[in-house]
Amino acid sequence: MVDKYSENQIQEALQELNAACESPWQIRDAKLCKQFKFANFSRAFGFMSSVALLAERADHHPEWFNVYNRVEIELTTHEADGISHRDFDLATKIEALLS
Amino acid sequence: MVDKYSENQIQEALQELNAACESPWQIRDAKLCKQFKFANFSRAFGFMSSVALLAERADHHPEWFNVYNRVEIELTTHEADGISHRDFDLATKIEALLS
Amino acid sequence: MVDKYSENQIQEALQELNAACESPWQIRDAKLCKQFKFANFSRAFGFMSSVALLAERADHHPEWFNVYNRVEIELTTHEADGISHRDFDLATKIEALLS
Amino acid sequence: MVDKYSENQIQEALQELNAACESPWQIRDAKLCKQFKFANFSRAFGFMSSVALLAERADHHPEWFNVYNRVEIELTTHEADGISHRDFDLATKIEALLS
Repeated sequence: MVDKYSENQIQEALQELNAACESPWQIRDAKLCKQFKFANFSRAFGFMSSVALLAERADHHPEWFNVYNRVEIELTTHEADGISHRDFDLATKIEALLS
Repeated sequence: MVDKYSENQIQEALQELNAACESPWQIRDAKLCKQFKFANFSRAFGFMSSVALLAERADHHPEWFNVYNRVEIELTTHEADGISHRDFDLATKIEALLS
Repeated sequence: MVDKYSENQIQEALQELNAACESPWQIRDAKLCKQFKFANFSRAFGFMSSVALLAERADHHPEWFNVYNRVEIELTTHEADGISHRDFDLATKIEALLS
Repeated sequence: MVDKYSENQIQEALQELNAACESPWQIRDAKLCKQFKFANFSRAFGFMSSVALLAERADHHPEWFNVYNRVEIELTTHEADGISHRDFDLATKIEALLS
């Protein structure tokens, strides 16, 4: 069982996550969200393939949208009915792909 | 330059496309749309990888959304400001992946 | 720690695996091997993406080769210095992708 | 029809290609070859997905091998029975993915 983060926990974890990011993740509709832009579709989909593998490994899958060079990722934890450490863990690994 | 299909052309092409599909493509907001469901994320993302290659080959990229085993594809032709033969061509190739 | 299968265990597991396959897996150089052919590169790489996700989930990665529509997969368990149940587990999941 | 590069053309193109690379491409068995290493499988397969899209776009597909974080790419032009500008074009695009 995974516990839902409180508003305070979310803000603290968000600050820590974004300290290492060029552009910030945001909270929207109880989801941890970020939009990524790449040079072209080939790079965007390569990124998505890496994220897919991270997600499958963590058994925690994003809601995501892509068109051409743009990828929008939304993370939430359904069983916790909100945002949990699992969302921040995956976001941290996603960011590491870009460094 | 790619011409936008008229309403009649769309309905005719849609009927032809759907004749070969188990579940139908639909027109929504001037886009050719379909939702696909798979057994799990691994199969859904394998399908997406094949679609990505078809799209790159055709230089015509979908707007698409995925969560776990569900993939939603929307096709439109920006330069034609509507639906064109390019959308139906790609949809036909996408369907062929599932046959 | 994963135990290496004995020659008898390998033959038994191989028979069980191949009972469900159109074309057989084989043992070569202490690896569980099979070559797959697809209609084109798009389908071959879609298959590879699904296999990549299965492999990452199992934390057990294939040695594999691709050219165009052909995929050659070799499975072995380095820590067991031979073939183990992990290779047969992954092969079974790979076959399930094609059914 | 694509012409096979002469030995001189290959050496010239190879020098130009490698001027921009951290580690060099090499000629082996009339193929343009390089081995790539990544932090883990997730990154290696993300790279492969991008390369797959470049290859499909160019309709020129690599012979490649992967195990975990290692990717070996071999490029040759079958219709030219040797190395051609198509191999150097794809290698240049592959290198651009890493910059």
